[in-house]
Amino acid sequence: MRNTEINAAILIIGNEILSGRTKDTNTSALAVWLNSMGIKVKEVRVIPDIEKTIIDTVNELKKLYNYLFTTGGIGPTHDDITAQSISKAFNLKYEIHKEAFKILEAYYKVGEFNEGRQKMVWMPKNANLILNPTSGAPGFNIENVFCLPGVPSILKSMLGGLNNKIVGGKPILTNTISLRTVESEIAKSLTDVQDKNKDIEIGSYPFFQAGKLGVSIVIRSVDQSKIEECTAQVLKFAYEKKIKVVEK
Amino acid sequence: MRNTEINAAILIIGNEILSGRTKDTNTSALAVWLNSMGIKVKEVRVIPDIEKTIIDTVNELKKLYNYLFTTGGIGPTHDDITAQSISKAFNLKYEIHKEAFKILEAYYKVGEFNEGRQKMVWMPKNANLILNPTSGAPGFNIENVFCLPGVPSILKSMLGGLNNKIVGGKPILTNTISLRTVESEIAKSLTDVQDKNKDIEIGSYPFFQAGKLGVSIVIRSVDQSKIEECTAQVLKFAYEKKIKVVEK
Repeated sequence: MRNTEINAAILIIGNEILSGRTKDTNTSALAVWLNSMGIKVKEVRVIPDIEKTIIDTVNELKKLYNYLFTTGGIGPTHDDITAQSISKAFNLKYEIHKEAFKILEAYYKVGEFNEGRQKMVWMPKNANLILNPTSGAPGFNIENVFCLPGVPSILKSMLGGLNNKIVGGKPILTNTISLRTVESEIAKSLTDVQDKNKDIEIGSYPFFQAGKLGVSIVIRSVDQSKIEECTAQVLKFAYEKKIKVVEK
Repeated sequence: MRNTEINAAILIIGNEILSGRTKDTNTSALAVWLNSMGIKVKEVRVIPDIEKTIIDTVNELKKLYNYLFTTGGIGPTHDDITAQSISKAFNLKYEIHKEAFKILEAYYKVGEFNEGRQKMVWMPKNANLILNPTSGAPGFNIENVFCLPGVPSILKSMLGGLNNKIVGGKPILTNTISLRTVESEIAKSLTDVQDKNKDIEIGSYPFFQAGKLGVSIVIRSVDQSKIEECTAQVLKFAYEKKIKVVEK
């Protein structure tokens, strides 16, 4: 499995997620994009803006997975400490990145590239830049670690620029079948389908929509024919149990 | 610090978060509730529905923090493996919980407490139940580990019942000041405030609202007077820089 699968972890750096103030949406955006590249997200961690925690977690996760994507902590304020922490994690000098400096010098009007903004060009030595078409300040990449900002709209706009820098696998395909039923009614049949298709990921998710209960069956695999086979087996038991397939 | 602070980790169990299909909102709900109890969330992990991963992660996190809250994987289908995994993590027998059986037997109409639903009363031996006022099936607690469902509305309805079972600390208070500015304009002044108040958590979060940029300064502490002191210092530099305080 590990030989053919290319995987990643996501590390969300930021007190605002841990305090509950902000709901994380970057995991979902990154995961959907990574799936389209054939990369499976195996783990997500959310940690506070504490240097030692960032260093230790980066060093652990970058060894466990093919890729590590971090979000947050690369802005201009005192609580943005991702770049300096990553420098320490890799034992690299934390210094002004000349190319990033040029980019931001050109991005801002004369006189506006102030001390606060200049903090954003401090990076680990020889980092590869990840361009930012939204707000100028680049992210960066060292080995298998990619550091992106925390603001969701900016993060999303930077992913396209990474398509050529990431080596993926077969895209992870998915099919969802939504049924007008409750989980307990289909649990046994669904277990049978899973048992017959051990290498396929089959998830069962109850939903409540327009006053009615339902269950979405989500089938995921890199193999389209196997998804179709599982889908047929689900539709078969639904038909036999007189369960309606619905739009969701 | 560790002596006075009571902390927790959250473990989100579920492929649907890792695939990007579902955005996690349980972290935010749990964190806000835990803060009100004086418990600080120090780490969140999201892991797949894989038994060994669940066992290893639970065993790691329950030692690192005062409390561990898990969400997901306690429903009736084949991919709900949290209860059996927690049993193994604690070396406890996985068996029918008599009290939970009675609750669900009474909850469902005669004949509707079927095999699928009966799976939800299998738990680690001698688990303490966490009552579920929404959909009947209880969560459970073993030592410092609390297992809750993944459906956000159900999870939220179960938190009230835990207030007496959790020993917290001083509630974590927060004040937010929103300024009509950009982060780089206030980075230096904010660093000065943080340096003068090292034990206070000060976060800086840019926002974009009704076509205008702004920054929210979030000050968090268990000490109201310190929050007020920091707030005054932020308002002072905002006044000196002629930055407007806005509603957000």
